[in-house]
Amino acid sequence: MTDERDARTVDFLFEMGLLKRYKRTGWVIAGVASPESIADHSHRTAITAAVIASMEGADPQRSAFLSLFHDTQESRVSDIPHIGKRYLKSALNEEVTADQTAGMPVALAEVIGSAVGEYEAKESAEAVCAKDADKLECLMQAVEYQEQGTDTRAWIETSMASLKTAAAKRLADAALEASSLRWMHQARESKPEL
Amino acid sequence: MTDERDARTVDFLFEMGLLKRYKRTGWVIAGVASPESIADHSHRTAITAAVIASMEGADPQRSAFLSLFHDTQESRVSDIPHIGKRYLKSALNEEVTADQTAGMPVALAEVIGSAVGEYEAKESAEAVCAKDADKLECLMQAVEYQEQGTDTRAWIETSMASLKTAAAKRLADAALEASSLRWMHQARESKPEL
Amino acid sequence: MTDERDARTVDFLFEMGLLKRYKRTGWVIAGVASPESIADHSHRTAITAAVIASMEGADPQRSAFLSLFHDTQESRVSDIPHIGKRYLKSALNEEVTADQTAGMPVALAEVIGSAVGEYEAKESAEAVCAKDADKLECLMQAVEYQEQGTDTRAWIETSMASLKTAAAKRLADAALEASSLRWMHQARESKPEL
Amino acid sequence: MTDERDARTVDFLFEMGLLKRYKRTGWVIAGVASPESIADHSHRTAITAAVIASMEGADPQRSAFLSLFHDTQESRVSDIPHIGKRYLKSALNEEVTADQTAGMPVALAEVIGSAVGEYEAKESAEAVCAKDADKLECLMQAVEYQEQGTDTRAWIETSMASLKTAAAKRLADAALEASSLRWMHQARESKPEL
Amino acid sequence: MTDERDARTVDFLFEMGLLKRYKRTGWVIAGVASPESIADHSHRTAITAAVIASMEGADPQRSAFLSLFHDTQESRVSDIPHIGKRYLKSALNEEVTADQTAGMPVALAEVIGSAVGEYEAKESAEAVCAKDADKLECLMQAVEYQEQGTDTRAWIETSMASLKTAAAKRLADAALEASSLRWMHQARESKPEL
Amino acid sequence: MTDERDARTVDFLFEMGLLKRYKRTGWVIAGVASPESIADHSHRTAITAAVIASMEGADPQRSAFLSLFHDTQESRVSDIPHIGKRYLKSALNEEVTADQTAGMPVALAEVIGSAVGEYEAKESAEAVCAKDADKLECLMQAVEYQEQGTDTRAWIETSMASLKTAAAKRLADAALEASSLRWMHQARESKPEL
Repeated sequence: MTDERDARTVDFLFEMGLLKRYKRTGWVIAGVASPESIADHSHRTAITAAVIASMEGADPQRSAFLSLFHDTQESRVSDIPHIGKRYLKSALNEEVTADQTAGMPVALAEVIGSAVGEYEAKESAEAVCAKDADKLECLMQAVEYQEQGTDTRAWIETSMASLKTAAAKRLADAALEASSLRWMHQARESKPEL
Repeated sequence: MTDERDARTVDFLFEMGLLKRYKRTGWVIAGVASPESIADHSHRTAITAAVIASMEGADPQRSAFLSLFHDTQESRVSDIPHIGKRYLKSALNEEVTADQTAGMPVALAEVIGSAVGEYEAKESAEAVCAKDADKLECLMQAVEYQEQGTDTRAWIETSMASLKTAAAKRLADAALEASSLRWMHQARESKPEL
Repeated sequence: MTDERDARTVDFLFEMGLLKRYKRTGWVIAGVASPESIADHSHRTAITAAVIASMEGADPQRSAFLSLFHDTQESRVSDIPHIGKRYLKSALNEEVTADQTAGMPVALAEVIGSAVGEYEAKESAEAVCAKDADKLECLMQAVEYQEQGTDTRAWIETSMASLKTAAAKRLADAALEASSLRWMHQARESKPEL
Repeated sequence: MTDERDARTVDFLFEMGLLKRYKRTGWVIAGVASPESIADHSHRTAITAAVIASMEGADPQRSAFLSLFHDTQESRVSDIPHIGKRYLKSALNEEVTADQTAGMPVALAEVIGSAVGEYEAKESAEAVCAKDADKLECLMQAVEYQEQGTDTRAWIETSMASLKTAAAKRLADAALEASSLRWMHQARESKPEL
Repeated sequence: MTDERDARTVDFLFEMGLLKRYKRTGWVIAGVASPESIADHSHRTAITAAVIASMEGADPQRSAFLSLFHDTQESRVSDIPHIGKRYLKSALNEEVTADQTAGMPVALAEVIGSAVGEYEAKESAEAVCAKDADKLECLMQAVEYQEQGTDTRAWIETSMASLKTAAAKRLADAALEASSLRWMHQARESKPEL
Repeated sequence: MTDERDARTVDFLFEMGLLKRYKRTGWVIAGVASPESIADHSHRTAITAAVIASMEGADPQRSAFLSLFHDTQESRVSDIPHIGKRYLKSALNEEVTADQTAGMPVALAEVIGSAVGEYEAKESAEAVCAKDADKLECLMQAVEYQEQGTDTRAWIETSMASLKTAAAKRLADAALEASSLRWMHQARESKPEL
């Protein structure tokens, strides 16, 4: 028979799976035909957080860890569009996470809850880098959708304006000068086929 | 003008974006109509690694960090199906990562390279948990696709058989006894509407 | 130069277009691969309302008209999942509609606003039939997704339990005994090719 | 046991569900990646008909009702592309509707049949407004797909040229001067977050 | 300046490209979430025709060639569902092909026209095998969609009943006893990884 | 009981079905929202090969037949992206085909194997035309995706540069001067509706 805490832990992991099926609402509004999921966004955000934190002299691993969970509440509240915030009042993310992790092993719930708490407080260097990673990731995705035909200028501007760290600002500038496939063209030129 | 290291760093982040567009090949073969992306899989895998590591007394944050990068080489080599491994000989993942991070700030390239190296060595407790997370995540996704109509029994069996840690085995058993939406039904019953 | 009221009217119609791109959240949760849009649902709901109203001796045209607008607020508040109602407090639909129709010709705003008001009041026979149409439509869609491989029994039961009119209950019973393609098989048998 | 008329009525509603799955052929030809369904189009067309009728002094509710059914025959004949009309000769829509509603309660079949008959006759003010709504809706959708990267100029021109009423022509002009997301940008500026 | 015949030839090839975007209508009706295209079907049909012809002692290459073009008229007339044939009268496929190839080099138009003519005449052994390939391919696709959760029994039965050659009948029997991924499981067992 | 050779033959045809589900990797990289399948590409390639061969005085039927099988190995090795060829060493296509056709009737395996062998040798006129068809088809698809909003200039240039025959080069020039829907606009003007 399944241990009750194992059951709650597995339930939590199944709940996280919904983030693969929920598409990012902003891109649906923008008219992107096959928009990324919340999980898609969260994965690159976590990598981006490690990058920014490293460049800012903060802890890359911690910043990535905060980012992993930064949108996990959306399995319950969904990805509310900005316009919706004029009509909806939401519970705090910390409260949602507490419900999501109830019944799990205490140490595990604490690992997750403290990451969410630190992110929402927006005070530690790692949280600031993680928040910037959220915005920089959005900006880079907007650049990619722009290349693929959709007008995403409003998203690029809003993301750019919200960046806080010097590293994120420099990378945003670099992203706007790049093409999203430059890495591939360079790699093909610099390395021969096997 | 963009600093050369910033350019390479942004190129790396754009390259990571391809993991959102690449679908997991196994699910295409299984006949899933809208399969998850590599990024989708990697996001829940990182969370699952933190869970298993916590239950096993390893470092959740480190294990999650290893998982974040465990499939990042697939932006270059793609997600080769198992049957393909009879016909294709691949470079080492460490070599691919070295190419991907060339030209980035040294400290940052080292953060990423050492994570990939540790994962591939499969020796540290965190690497073992991260590897189990990869398989448990696949098993849970197979359960979800099974509920949605596709026959994924072969995937469930293969994943189950490859688990190493006691925690992952217990969670796998629990997952096979659960429904992927049990968390939601419980949450709706235990909490009133606002 | 565009008349200000024409501009607002066109803005309203563009806003309605978003209902084509927003997928019904419940089906995303259920795991349907390509779920219907809010507009998809609203179209058959309006036809269903006309059917139920006719069977109940109410005005089919009025009931269909109420149904046309019954989810139009979701362009602003999105389709909040049931579980989300534990965490989100929403403005009244009448208030959303008032914002959506602001600046449009007064007579036109009144035509729409009064339809929304009547629907939300749930008192007129036509509103009751329109509300039942919303639920019967959901039940029939659940039957179709069930046939296509997804487990939607929870949706069938919830929809069935909320029906109020005798006509909707009889049609729900009939739907559960039918196959969604029976109409086609019958049509092919009863009529020769040209 | 299901009453025969209930069975036929439910069959009709299931048949209407196919309009959600049939994509509008014109947009497939244009190369739109995820084209709207016939039901998607019909929903906004019905709302657009109410708008035009109100502006033209006709009955908004009647015009919307005609629009609801204007493409319902396509569950049987599919959405034949324009080029196909050089090679296919089709039965009258009134005949298709008569087959679709055969066996349903007589009053109900008459409600639907008379709406289709009035629409096809193209004589009443409400039918003229509904026909213009069909074309204006297509024009607005073309504007949206244009913004999303697909060249739809041929569709905009053809739709514009076929409009009959002054209201529809004014709205079409206004649509060509607008952006499809202007409503959202205005709403975000004019109203604070909760 | 482009030669007029080259222009017509390129136009023909662009027209053929529409067969990639047109989904097979039968599968849309069956409720398949991401149905195959006409081109998808035609590719395996051509291979299947070569197989059947070889087993029947006919010319595999000729039979495959006939199959390549057997649905090419659908870029103009679309893939009319069976139920539609009660309401639509279509031009002959030979006439459509004649229009499609008008203005192309005479020898080329003749190569295509004679293939279509032979297929439609249903007399040569190669045409009979190509026709059976069309049906066997449909049956095998139905088996695959059945495995993926959609009820396609009606398609399996209809396809089976229309087969003419002994080879196609034997292969259909074999297909119903197989799983669509048996080839992969066998290949993985019989061959080691590199 | 199924004959062993029939079983292997059916397995081969099921294996070919995977080419419908595998999307062309290059277009995924380019950011196309709903990319064509390998089967989609192969179907038009075969028709294109017949066209080029006819213009070059080679055998259209043989060239189309070679093209039908030119990517059939990808059911086992998948569609490796160009960048992947820096990291993966692949078995010969002839070896893959030999495995795929093992156990099938000898005459049939020989028909397929010799077609693959001739194509890979790149010596016969028909093989040269088939190879050019592969590239011209890619160029035309790139033109279509360009019209639909995605930047595919790199694909157009690479395809153009690899063409060998005079016919393919002329058609490529003609394709770049055309619009992919010109055929439809011309057909609609030159022929009245029925």
